[in-house]
Amino acid sequence: MKNTITYDELLSFCKNVMEKNNCSGNKAEVVADVLVEADARGIFSHGTARLKRYINHIKDKVIIPEAEPEVIFETPVSAVIDGNAGIGQYISKEAMKIAIEKAKKSGISIVVAKNSNHFGIAGYYAEMAIKEDLIGISLTNTAPLVIPTFGVERVLGTNPISVGIPCSNGNFLLDMATSVASRGKVEQYNRLNQDLNDNWAAGGNGEIMTNPAEVLDLFLSGPYGGMLPLGGNTEKSGGHKGYGLSLLVDILTGGLSSSTGSSKTYGEKTLISHFFAAINPKIFGDEDSVKKSIDGILNTVKNSKKEPGKKRIYIHGEKEKERREKSMKDGIELDDNTVLLLTKISGEFGEKITFE
Amino acid sequence: MKNTITYDELLSFCKNVMEKNNCSGNKAEVVADVLVEADARGIFSHGTARLKRYINHIKDKVIIPEAEPEVIFETPVSAVIDGNAGIGQYISKEAMKIAIEKAKKSGISIVVAKNSNHFGIAGYYAEMAIKEDLIGISLTNTAPLVIPTFGVERVLGTNPISVGIPCSNGNFLLDMATSVASRGKVEQYNRLNQDLNDNWAAGGNGEIMTNPAEVLDLFLSGPYGGMLPLGGNTEKSGGHKGYGLSLLVDILTGGLSSSTGSSKTYGEKTLISHFFAAINPKIFGDEDSVKKSIDGILNTVKNSKKEPGKKRIYIHGEKEKERREKSMKDGIELDDNTVLLLTKISGEFGEKITFE
Repeated sequence: MKNTITYDELLSFCKNVMEKNNCSGNKAEVVADVLVEADARGIFSHGTARLKRYINHIKDKVIIPEAEPEVIFETPVSAVIDGNAGIGQYISKEAMKIAIEKAKKSGISIVVAKNSNHFGIAGYYAEMAIKEDLIGISLTNTAPLVIPTFGVERVLGTNPISVGIPCSNGNFLLDMATSVASRGKVEQYNRLNQDLNDNWAAGGNGEIMTNPAEVLDLFLSGPYGGMLPLGGNTEKSGGHKGYGLSLLVDILTGGLSSSTGSSKTYGEKTLISHFFAAINPKIFGDEDSVKKSIDGILNTVKNSKKEPGKKRIYIHGEKEKERREKSMKDGIELDDNTVLLLTKISGEFGEKITFE
Repeated sequence: MKNTITYDELLSFCKNVMEKNNCSGNKAEVVADVLVEADARGIFSHGTARLKRYINHIKDKVIIPEAEPEVIFETPVSAVIDGNAGIGQYISKEAMKIAIEKAKKSGISIVVAKNSNHFGIAGYYAEMAIKEDLIGISLTNTAPLVIPTFGVERVLGTNPISVGIPCSNGNFLLDMATSVASRGKVEQYNRLNQDLNDNWAAGGNGEIMTNPAEVLDLFLSGPYGGMLPLGGNTEKSGGHKGYGLSLLVDILTGGLSSSTGSSKTYGEKTLISHFFAAINPKIFGDEDSVKKSIDGILNTVKNSKKEPGKKRIYIHGEKEKERREKSMKDGIELDDNTVLLLTKISGEFGEKITFE
C-alpha cells in the first residue's frame, strides 16, 4: 500500500476537510497544523488518524466550530478562558498566545481554559513558547481512562504534562502522558497483535491485563478497569507517583479553571480544561549563563556511559525532531489504517488525497 | 528497646545539638524543624536519622553554618539566591518566604537557589505556601544516584517534585522522588533483609538488581549502576518519563540558577540547587469557586470504587497528615537504628535524650 504524503499536501487536505465541516479558515488551519505536526513527529496516536473523531464531534455538536474563546477573568500574570465548547486546538493556541504575551511583559504567566475539547499533542503549545525563547508548560485533562492506586474506577485522565525549555543546540521538549501508556498505544498493540507490558492496564478487580483487545473492551463497558498510572499498580512499583501527577494535572486544569476533573468530561457536554504557562528565562538574570548551564546539564547526560547495545541516550524531544526532519525530506509515512481512514474521508468530502 | 519521644523533646534535642555545631539559634531551629517534621510524618528516610550527616558536613566544611543566603538577582516575580554553601534548610526556608511574599504582591513567583546543601523533605517548603493559602512548588536536585533510560551512569538525582494545593478539607501535598524509590528506601529494605522490587535499580551493565546490599555497594564503587527513574528501565515500562521528570528538575534547579545538574553536586563543593514557586489562586478569579472545583475533583477520586481488599484511596499528603496527628498525640516512634544514632549523638555532645 502506498503510504507516504508530503507535509504540505497532508496539511492542505486536513485544512480543506475541516473547512467543509464548518470550520473557518484560521480554525481549520490550526487543527490541520496540530494533527499534521503529530504525524510528522511520529506521534501517530495524536495525528490525522484522529481527523474523523473531530468531524464526528462537530456533527454531534460536542465541538461547536463557530464558538469563540472568551477571556472571562485576567490579571497581568494570568487569564481564565471559557472555550464555549469550541475547537480545542484553536482555544489552546489562543490561550498560549496570551500566556506568551503576558510572560513577555510580566516575566511569568498562567492561562487556564475550560469548556474546551481535545487539543491534540500537548507539546505543540509548549513549543510555541520555546519559539519565543520562553519556557512553556502545557497540561490538559482528558477523557477518564486511568484508575488511581488502590482503585478500580476510571476517574483520572491520561492527563499529559508537556514542558519545553529553549536550549542552544536542540531544545528540551518533554511531552508525556501521566499513565504508563496511552489508549492510542493499546490500539497500536492490538493492531499488531502484541501483548501489553504488565504494568499498563488492570481490570475491574485490579487484576493486571495484557491482552490489548480486552483492555479496549473495558472502555466500552462500564466505568471499571483501565490504564494504570506511571509506575504501575502498586505503591512498591511507584504507581502512587503517577497517580499523584495525574491528579495534579486535574487540579491545575479543571480545578484552577473552576471546572471539573477528567471523570466529568465527556458527559452531555465535553468539559476538557487546559493549563498553559510561559516563563521568561530573563527573570533569572543573564540569559546566556542560564542557557549555558542547561546545555551543560543535557550534555553530561547525553555523553554519559550507555547500556550495552544502546548507541545513544536521548534528550526528550530529540527523537520527534529528527523524525520531523525526515518527514520534511522524505514525506510523512502513515500506517495502513490511517491511509484507509483518510481515503474514506477523501471520498466523503470530495477532497483529493494521493499517497506515494 | 524504648523508641518513642515527644515532638517537642526531639525538636529541642536537635536544635541544641545543631547549636553546639556552630548553628545560630534560628538556623538550628529550622534544621530541627524540618528533620522532626519528617519523622512526625513517618518519612524516616529524611528525618533525624540524617542528623549525623549534617553534623559531619559541618565538620568537613561542606556546610558552612555561618553563611547567609544572598539575593543576587531579582524582579517582582523572581529571585536568584546564592546559598554560599550554607545550611540547605535555612536557605530554602528564606527562599520560599521570598517566593510567598512576591506571589502575594504579583500573583506568581519563582525563586531559585544555588550553592546550597541538602534541604530535607521537599514538601516542607510547598506546605509553607499552603499555610498562606497559596499553591506551592518545591524542587531540588540531589546527589547523583539515578541512571537515565539507555544509560548506566549515575548522572541524575532522585530529584523530588513537591506541589502543595490548598483545599477546604485536608490539602493536596504531593512529594515524590522522580526515581521509583529513594536511596533511603533501599537502606530500609537492607535493614529488613528484603528484596527490592524489580524496577528499582540496575547495575553497571543495565541488569536489574534486587539485592539491597549490592545496590548500596554500587554507590560506593564508581559511577556505574544505580536507581531507576520512575517507570523503570525500559521505554515500554515508561522509564523515559521518570527520566524526563528528573532531567526537568535538574534544568529548573541547576539550570535556571546558572549552576550545575545533579551529576556535578558533591564534588569538592556541594552545589545543590533548588526551585520554589508560589501561585496565588486569586489570579484565577473567585477563590471559593476554584476551591470548590478542586474539592470536587478530590472527592470524586476518594469516593470511587476500591480494589478488592483495599479500604481507601488516598489523596497525596493524607497519610503523612494522619501519621503526624498520631505522632503529636502518642509521640514520635523511631526505629532502633535511629534511636541508637541519636543516643550516640547525645553522648558526643552532652545533650540529654530520653525515649519511652
